[in-house]
Amino acid sequence: MIEVINLLRGLPDAANGEVFERLAGVNGVMIERIVSQGQSSPESGWYDQPNHEWVMLLEGAARLAFEDGSEVELAPGDALDIPAHTCHRVSWTVPDRPTVWLAVHYPAADG
Amino acid sequence: MIEVINLLRGLPDAANGEVFERLAGVNGVMIERIVSQGQSSPESGWYDQPNHEWVMLLEGAARLAFEDGSEVELAPGDALDIPAHTCHRVSWTVPDRPTVWLAVHYPAADG
Repeated sequence: MIEVINLLRGLPDAANGEVFERLAGVNGVMIERIVSQGQSSPESGWYDQPNHEWVMLLEGAARLAFEDGSEVELAPGDALDIPAHTCHRVSWTVPDRPTVWLAVHYPAADG
Repeated sequence: MIEVINLLRGLPDAANGEVFERLAGVNGVMIERIVSQGQSSPESGWYDQPNHEWVMLLEGAARLAFEDGSEVELAPGDALDIPAHTCHRVSWTVPDRPTVWLAVHYPAADG
């Protein structure tokens, strides 16, 4: 019997730090849930990733900023495909309730 | 500027057939949204897929059946990882409103 999990119930407490949970994947594909609460990330600067990342906001509210100066505001159901090496960061998440992300990291075409 | 789409707004009418929309992917990875309304599928029998499929119910209600006789009932937020060649079918979706699925197809470890 295949296990069913619910990504929106029984959320971990992210008030003191984002919580990353790997859900599935193999061969460079990684599906994860991220729970944020008020964080912007990474603290150190930009995410510059070798893989593509498709991301969807499941719950909450957030803003993503890109190195070209653009910023997008995300509501539940919003999704975007971030190409490899497109520098980005979470510039804001709503402070008073959890924000839940689904991220699918997948290899770029050239490996 | 990266395009943001919303997977829950402006849904296609699926009353006369499921609507599959490819969202992203490359190299055997395929992220898609499926909108169902009352369908069970496939009509022809079982899905027997060469790739793994991670699936999440975003909206609506559905049941998935497996060849071993087990069946799971899915509510929004529910997710499961269906290994390659695990025969399955959608045995029911709620008839009076859309059911929205997110599916991530990804290659099995042996290619």
